Amino acid sequence: MKRIKCVISYDGSGFSGYQIQPNKRTVQGEFEGVLVKMHGGNEIKVHASGRTDANVHAYGQVLHFDTSLAIPSTKWIKALNSLLPDDIAVSHVQQEDKDFHARFSVVSKEYRYKISRQQERDVFSRDYAYHFPYELNIERMREAAQYLLGTHDFTSFCSAKTEIEDRIRTIYEIELFQYNNELTMRFVGNGFLYNMVRILVGTLIEVGQEKIFPAQIKEILEKKSRIYAGKTAPAHGLYLWQVNYDN
Amino acid sequence: MKRIKCVISYDGSGFSGYQIQPNKRTVQGEFEGVLVKMHGGNEIKVHASGRTDANVHAYGQVLHFDTSLAIPSTKWIKALNSLLPDDIAVSHVQQEDKDFHARFSVVSKEYRYKISRQQERDVFSRDYAYHFPYELNIERMREAAQYLLGTHDFTSFCSAKTEIEDRIRTIYEIELFQYNNELTMRFVGNGFLYNMVRILVGTLIEVGQEKIFPAQIKEILEKKSRIYAGKTAPAHGLYLWQVNYDN
Repeated sequence: MKRIKCVISYDGSGFSGYQIQPNKRTVQGEFEGVLVKMHGGNEIKVHASGRTDANVHAYGQVLHFDTSLAIPSTKWIKALNSLLPDDIAVSHVQQEDKDFHARFSVVSKEYRYKISRQQERDVFSRDYAYHFPYELNIERMREAAQYLLGTHDFTSFCSAKTEIEDRIRTIYEIELFQYNNELTMRFVGNGFLYNMVRILVGTLIEVGQEKIFPAQIKEILEKKSRIYAGKTAPAHGLYLWQVNYDN
Repeated sequence: MKRIKCVISYDGSGFSGYQIQPNKRTVQGEFEGVLVKMHGGNEIKVHASGRTDANVHAYGQVLHFDTSLAIPSTKWIKALNSLLPDDIAVSHVQQEDKDFHARFSVVSKEYRYKISRQQERDVFSRDYAYHFPYELNIERMREAAQYLLGTHDFTSFCSAKTEIEDRIRTIYEIELFQYNNELTMRFVGNGFLYNMVRILVGTLIEVGQEKIFPAQIKEILEKKSRIYAGKTAPAHGLYLWQVNYDN
């Protein structure tokens, strides 16, 4: 048996999220369906770096699975891409050692969030960026981001439904850059809790609207309660951009 | 009655083209449907700069219609955008004199064609650029484009089904530029025949593949027969980019 690592992208618009669910179209369901075909009807379990919600996109999601098929990496890409639906694509395939795990070996992850700032809605980005045509004080948002960097208990910045107990995470980088009318927010961290990036974005937007002062971020973190942070930004602006492993 | 000019964009993926057809979802059908609502059930005829085929996009299609409603231009944008489906958006509204006509007043039009040149298919551009992962000699394509500039009989470069007799058109500009893995081809002319841009693109692609020599373009024009030009490039890479009028 060989362990295969795949880097995939998907357009989240047509999926009820990454994780397999009965009677729903999911990324995992589609991917495992293709592997079943390739393995003559045998089920192959796929492991991802993590889940993504409905309408959340991936530019560089990472999966692994074990296979007895003797196919070279370049042929894997062609074979998978010819069988996968057109809203999932494989960009990279590589054989890994048995101790590699798409989820447990993760060192850091990068998410990006795109905001379309043009006045009227843009038909081409309607599913790929959050349309927010109002004023934003970007310098204040950058100042606020400084308070989020480093190691914190992010209880205030995750869904109240989060079941995991350890909410301490480290954010290495937050970067905001604009190109034409599009604002992109980049988040790199050792891990992110449920809805965490979308709540960080929603809160930074409220900072940009001058509803929240940058220095209040420190207090919101200390409160350890979801009710103090901003709204959860919509799913369709979010991209799982890159997953990093030791190599 | 006031004559209103609208600049609209649409994602062509969900339409059976611009022009209204029974039992099909069309841009004109959706737009006229919104105007009927705004005019208390009265039908309002919309005139466009020209038709676009199924899956062809518009970044700057121009329409006009006559109305008795006394709405200022900025309110027209908001009203139309709130009623139109999310794959059609109005970017500009302006009152015009009665002698303005979206089709007959056109001075020139710009079309763009996008080609995605990355090796593996890209899920995010699958409906918005033609995926062509093969070698292209861009310099030869630019050389070939020079032979297309100016005033010619473009019979060889329009659909054999074209009914219009006068196939003489003037192309003012053809520009090819690359950004990341995307090649954009810009065409500006006084008018374009049925399928003309897609056949020009398909032919230039064959020049890029070195199947056709740049100087052969001159001969293809002279043959005045569709069979000598290249294939018709797919619709989903094409954008009606801008329509220009005297002002």
